[in-house]
Amino acid sequence: MAQTTIDKLKSQIGSQVTLRGWVYKLRSIGKIWFLVLRDGTGLLQCVVVKAEVPEDVFAMESRLTQESSVIVTGTVREEKRAVGGVELGVSGIEVVHVAEEYPIAPKEHGTAFLMDHRHLWLRSRLQHAILKVRHQVIKASRDFFDSNGFTLVDSPIFTANAVEGTTNLFKVDYFDQNAYLTQSGQLYQEAGALAFGKSYCFGPTFRAEKSKTRRHLTEFWMIEPEMAYCDLDEDMSWAERYVEYIVQWCLEHCKTELATLERDTSKLEKVKRPFPRITYAEAAEILARKGSDFKPGSDFGGTDETLISEEFDRPVMIHRWPADIKAFYMKRDPANNDLALGVDMLAPEGHGEIVGGGQREDDYDILLKRIRDNDLPVKPFEWYLDLRKYGSVPHSGFGLGIERTVGWICGTKHIRETIPFPRTIYRIEP
Amino acid sequence: MAQTTIDKLKSQIGSQVTLRGWVYKLRSIGKIWFLVLRDGTGLLQCVVVKAEVPEDVFAMESRLTQESSVIVTGTVREEKRAVGGVELGVSGIEVVHVAEEYPIAPKEHGTAFLMDHRHLWLRSRLQHAILKVRHQVIKASRDFFDSNGFTLVDSPIFTANAVEGTTNLFKVDYFDQNAYLTQSGQLYQEAGALAFGKSYCFGPTFRAEKSKTRRHLTEFWMIEPEMAYCDLDEDMSWAERYVEYIVQWCLEHCKTELATLERDTSKLEKVKRPFPRITYAEAAEILARKGSDFKPGSDFGGTDETLISEEFDRPVMIHRWPADIKAFYMKRDPANNDLALGVDMLAPEGHGEIVGGGQREDDYDILLKRIRDNDLPVKPFEWYLDLRKYGSVPHSGFGLGIERTVGWICGTKHIRETIPFPRTIYRIEP
Repeated sequence: MAQTTIDKLKSQIGSQVTLRGWVYKLRSIGKIWFLVLRDGTGLLQCVVVKAEVPEDVFAMESRLTQESSVIVTGTVREEKRAVGGVELGVSGIEVVHVAEEYPIAPKEHGTAFLMDHRHLWLRSRLQHAILKVRHQVIKASRDFFDSNGFTLVDSPIFTANAVEGTTNLFKVDYFDQNAYLTQSGQLYQEAGALAFGKSYCFGPTFRAEKSKTRRHLTEFWMIEPEMAYCDLDEDMSWAERYVEYIVQWCLEHCKTELATLERDTSKLEKVKRPFPRITYAEAAEILARKGSDFKPGSDFGGTDETLISEEFDRPVMIHRWPADIKAFYMKRDPANNDLALGVDMLAPEGHGEIVGGGQREDDYDILLKRIRDNDLPVKPFEWYLDLRKYGSVPHSGFGLGIERTVGWICGTKHIRETIPFPRTIYRIEP
Repeated sequence: MAQTTIDKLKSQIGSQVTLRGWVYKLRSIGKIWFLVLRDGTGLLQCVVVKAEVPEDVFAMESRLTQESSVIVTGTVREEKRAVGGVELGVSGIEVVHVAEEYPIAPKEHGTAFLMDHRHLWLRSRLQHAILKVRHQVIKASRDFFDSNGFTLVDSPIFTANAVEGTTNLFKVDYFDQNAYLTQSGQLYQEAGALAFGKSYCFGPTFRAEKSKTRRHLTEFWMIEPEMAYCDLDEDMSWAERYVEYIVQWCLEHCKTELATLERDTSKLEKVKRPFPRITYAEAAEILARKGSDFKPGSDFGGTDETLISEEFDRPVMIHRWPADIKAFYMKRDPANNDLALGVDMLAPEGHGEIVGGGQREDDYDILLKRIRDNDLPVKPFEWYLDLRKYGSVPHSGFGLGIERTVGWICGTKHIRETIPFPRTIYRIEP
């Protein structure tokens, strides 16, 4: 009696197997009852026929409840109408634990209730599918950078200085001093790229934004590659290669999950290079043409992003931004000193910005002047300035937000469902 | 002129190539000078012969300094005596940036100085090798769990409750309340395993220990798998399979790095299953026999761990611990209620504990009693208790500390060198 899992049954038709899992659903039609089993790898219809099992096994139907844990034995049969193409002809059931009445019934629940029960909600079909996609997005990301010569250089979480102001930073009591939680690993990746040629970090980042929109979490995961000897154009090429790779990977490896989520995959199939590259000025023109009240010179809001992304059937990269609204470390466009060589990538279908990056200022004197012009303290940036003293090179990078990307690929409106245990301004439990 | 990297040159003998990197070393013998180039993928001897290059290129030797950034063009030649088996016959050099006098000269520096220059120290040969091993340890870890049916379920970093006391927790100002930084993702992985069958998390964890030993960091990375329908024996089997996998992976993929670190790889080659499994009582006997003043019933100190690990040529797993010194959620041994079904794995050669884990209590009433007996508040554990209400199953897991494991594989004494930007009680910069 081979121990197995539901995802492997298709190659075990005709075999006697044992499966360990939980009761997802029960349905009786008299002399036959059906147990839909979940084991974390999929769902399986198990058929219990009165004439085929001992009396005590048939009688279990009255004891079992949703989410009770059971070990089921039986024969795998082809069943074209079932998800996965198989069902189980049950010969035995061992009850491990009878669950109390399960709080998440098939009826509709409010979000707060579901989030309070996140530890259980993870078991339900849609949430399970979203987190499986998350798993594959992260796996594809690692694989992409690992196989393209990047070295993982984890950026630190604790930082000593609130270098760009404390507004959106979380403060930590660090023994006898203060520390802050990182908002981005980028500055450290610049040191990484100059040591390893190409580096990346992947970890949680933190923003204490008092924002309540569905696009914001206080704790979210970001992957940040950085490349030495790389300009803005090459940076955009890396970003589009990477995003194409994860989307195509998910189309191949998350077929079941995307079907469960009723995702229109024809939209994802279009995500192929080259992605359109437009300047900030061209994006502003689109908004003007579409009647937005957007003010040139400012950043795009969520509605503006949607208006721009609607013009394209794949992600669009917007480059050459007004330097005033971008970070001090961005390199200026040699053709126009008022423009920063930054790039944002907007996902299609109104899923907003998924990538932000650009070319970094690599000249010591210019960078020092920028720090001073921005009224920033020089001392905490000394190590960062060092990178321009000892073998400075043109270098670029970007950061991709995992949750927004998962939300886009899944077609999920609420970013809080794209992370196992979301943290927002109002929620740090369970 | 193909753009390439040093790690790929062996298959390009006879080709004209361009390499972008930094000056690692310079040496002149009159009409020939040598530039050892580093590009993040390796080191390469570049030979500049007066008769073979334009005058201005030959004259560069006097301008170039350690860590200056250069683009070098030339022909790849076989050179058996060189690392990597090749050298470059230079035809041209483009100077990108002449570095100021590099602070890390070949002379000996103190640790504080090197750590203050960590952003540059990463470029040096030994540090570079250690972090390459770290990269492969993490890659092997992800690959192992991904290919064995585990789903990544990221545990949250912010937690609302200091459930086991605040002594070693970092406190965060979280809007109008307090939050704490996670010490372990385990409790959340238990929810993950019951949803996905097998799950894992990988991320930074935090301990505010006022410990100054070379084994402690305040911020370190941990990978924590958890398996439903899994007892202590199977848990130990997973742990040994996993540790064998990463060690054998590194032996295969980090040959150059381990040679650079002068690691005795014969010791690592012995890391093959099965690993010895001894009880806590047996470990205590070893200590008594070896004359340690260890007090039975207490935890092992660093010296005790070394004394025990010296008895074995591979990692040793110590199981069945006095319940009093283990966490409240550990399941008790059915054969002896005073023992907890926990396991610690000690690395050989005195590298200390690298894995801690065990079987979890899965009975609602017993777990609730434990929480009360330990004077812990029940409310913050309600979600955790829920996991025993709705389809409870035997389940187990463990956590492996990345830095200690990298330290062991590299044979590195100081754990602070196994993470790109170490954080200790005294250091949160650079």
